[in-house]
Amino acid sequence: MDIVMNADALNRFLDSEFPQVAAEYRVEQVNETGLVARLAVGEAHLRPGGTVSGPSIFALADLAIYCAILARIGPVALAVTTNASIDFMRKPEAGRDLIADCRLLKLGRVLAVAEALIYSAGGAEPVARCSMTYSIPPKS
Amino acid sequence: MDIVMNADALNRFLDSEFPQVAAEYRVEQVNETGLVARLAVGEAHLRPGGTVSGPSIFALADLAIYCAILARIGPVALAVTTNASIDFMRKPEAGRDLIADCRLLKLGRVLAVAEALIYSAGGAEPVARCSMTYSIPPKS
Amino acid sequence: MDIVMNADALNRFLDSEFPQVAAEYRVEQVNETGLVARLAVGEAHLRPGGTVSGPSIFALADLAIYCAILARIGPVALAVTTNASIDFMRKPEAGRDLIADCRLLKLGRVLAVAEALIYSAGGAEPVARCSMTYSIPPKS
Amino acid sequence: MDIVMNADALNRFLDSEFPQVAAEYRVEQVNETGLVARLAVGEAHLRPGGTVSGPSIFALADLAIYCAILARIGPVALAVTTNASIDFMRKPEAGRDLIADCRLLKLGRVLAVAEALIYSAGGAEPVARCSMTYSIPPKS
Repeated sequence: MDIVMNADALNRFLDSEFPQVAAEYRVEQVNETGLVARLAVGEAHLRPGGTVSGPSIFALADLAIYCAILARIGPVALAVTTNASIDFMRKPEAGRDLIADCRLLKLGRVLAVAEALIYSAGGAEPVARCSMTYSIPPKS
Repeated sequence: MDIVMNADALNRFLDSEFPQVAAEYRVEQVNETGLVARLAVGEAHLRPGGTVSGPSIFALADLAIYCAILARIGPVALAVTTNASIDFMRKPEAGRDLIADCRLLKLGRVLAVAEALIYSAGGAEPVARCSMTYSIPPKS
Repeated sequence: MDIVMNADALNRFLDSEFPQVAAEYRVEQVNETGLVARLAVGEAHLRPGGTVSGPSIFALADLAIYCAILARIGPVALAVTTNASIDFMRKPEAGRDLIADCRLLKLGRVLAVAEALIYSAGGAEPVARCSMTYSIPPKS
Repeated sequence: MDIVMNADALNRFLDSEFPQVAAEYRVEQVNETGLVARLAVGEAHLRPGGTVSGPSIFALADLAIYCAILARIGPVALAVTTNASIDFMRKPEAGRDLIADCRLLKLGRVLAVAEALIYSAGGAEPVARCSMTYSIPPKS
């Protein structure tokens, strides 16, 4: 699984293809087994009590796993999530960004599987765990 | 499982407790086995190609299941999702709202389990399937 | 989704292809949306306290969903489960068979998605809920 | 999360509480983050083509996660699985045992969450990934 897009290339891809959300998300690092991404937590992500909403955590995991796949196969915008499973385990700490630490488990010809642990920035214990399957479109 | 909050009561609850998102979501009907909710799809929910984003579909399922539980136990704002599993099966039709048809499968003392099928409004086949577990806080 | 194998044809297929387990499982009915299958619960399926083991419930859901797919595409022995999500909701009643009521949600060219509710025979409330994705091999 | 049962203690517990399956499963190691367990693959676990059945892989993950929890809370036989999500990623290698490498992610008062990667013994890439939630009964 050679790396064909690094963090800079992935961030430029997000800026151009997903302008609605790119301001909030940054790929911080592409590494040998996966990728690290960050959500800049703002008012729009919060729920009563100051916690980050479940859909915001889901969106971060989805983006991180998507980018971990693109890092290996290149800018295939049409890869799509077919399945996701997520466990919400702890309340994120107020006023902190969220970090997704993503690991690619399988990169097949038509399906890719990865998992992500989500942390409050600086926190030691994961707030959520997510695994996803992506369907990769055939090369034309 | 008597119904203690109807669609109007749930919508007022969303307006007061979740003002960030309440404008987009409406509970349409509380029925014997669950609940029907609608997402008014707008620009913010779209992805390249005109499809509705995965996190938007997840958010609709989450809200529908949350409200299906509250309809039976009353306005317990602190019920939290502990687990979710979602299958994305078809591309939502462009320019249509999304409808969640939710069915409560278990309402225990500490855990509730429900599933939702998500449709493009007027569509016959589900675009996604989601099941979730909620943890219900003890009564004080 | 025309039906190409009925309950008898599926049971004969199980007898010939899965002799290790075929004695325990029977397809009872193929219907318009899915299929009903039964696990004859025996000593080997029980856990301390007389309950049916989780893996036995998983195996029943897996078999029911597999057969629901074959009922539409014919005897493709090599269709494989790629993902499963299961919620165990209630303790099965002692001394009763288990019934899987399976519904096919998507039958695509390469992926099929279905869900199953599992009941104690004669019981009104599901003991478990399961959804699975199957990968369908290309026709040669 | 102090360790209160080591591998020997867990294996003796399996022998006495789960005599039906104990011969097939062994806890190999309890470590700081989780546990390693082994399934001695035999004829009963195989499917056509020589692969290990999905339910057998599920059962190994379930047992490994159960034991990883007991290693920290002691012999609470009545802890029960409430949710499981599993991805089957590769075909297990014929004629090899399966190894579950399990990591405990949360050990709360009422819920525990863990994940397991399943390998063919000696294999470098996981054949399956599983996450589970267990409900822990209150102390009497």
